[in-house]
Amino acid sequence: MATRDEICAVCDRYIASVAGGDVDAVMALYGEDPQIEDPVGSEPRRGRDAVREFYESVTGIELKMRRIGPVTVVGNHAAFQFRIDVDLEGTTMTMVSTDVMTFDDAGKIQTMLAYADGEAKPDDAG
Amino acid sequence: MATRDEICAVCDRYIASVAGGDVDAVMALYGEDPQIEDPVGSEPRRGRDAVREFYESVTGIELKMRRIGPVTVVGNHAAFQFRIDVDLEGTTMTMVSTDVMTFDDAGKIQTMLAYADGEAKPDDAG
Repeated sequence: MATRDEICAVCDRYIASVAGGDVDAVMALYGEDPQIEDPVGSEPRRGRDAVREFYESVTGIELKMRRIGPVTVVGNHAAFQFRIDVDLEGTTMTMVSTDVMTFDDAGKIQTMLAYADGEAKPDDAG
Repeated sequence: MATRDEICAVCDRYIASVAGGDVDAVMALYGEDPQIEDPVGSEPRRGRDAVREFYESVTGIELKMRRIGPVTVVGNHAAFQFRIDVDLEGTTMTMVSTDVMTFDDAGKIQTMLAYADGEAKPDDAG
């Protein structure tokens, strides 16, 4: 089974790779039969081809992503929050996502759920 | 359907009620047939009696809980992170949990999953 440190490292590589628009790097983090739902409630995408298609659809966008809290890991599950800043013709749109992932024994991502909220404020701590 | 503001308010009442050891207040936030898994990977508890029993089992403990990032809401789903500080005979143990909840149309909690991690550091932003 993957260790906590390995899982945390994959989560950070995931954020960097998505923000960098590097679809090959993102797909290298996924295992053989991944399933994603981004955002939660949308049609799930299953299999490497469908997942790759999703990331290719968002790589044209200029965005910054930065984790805003720790990765919490339980067994082969992880959850973390990050802010996304998108530049749209000079205006910055900010959103926050909580992503929840499961990992296989080799530390590859099996499933990803994105609780992505355009109204959440990154600095809103309780 | 519950609004984003209503769902966020329930999440904050949840944190305050659990930290305050007020099991009635916690149970008032849950709907008719709740299911929880805390931590993720443990045996799920289903139904109000089983859920109440879980919260009664943790109310003897002196703890502080504080949200450390925003609540992210998508439809009737919410996810948020909070720190938990437990006083154990003068030593403080800190952990972070990412909780994921679903809500019914009346804004009551239907399901709760806790990604609770005793090794996560609350200040560990990426």
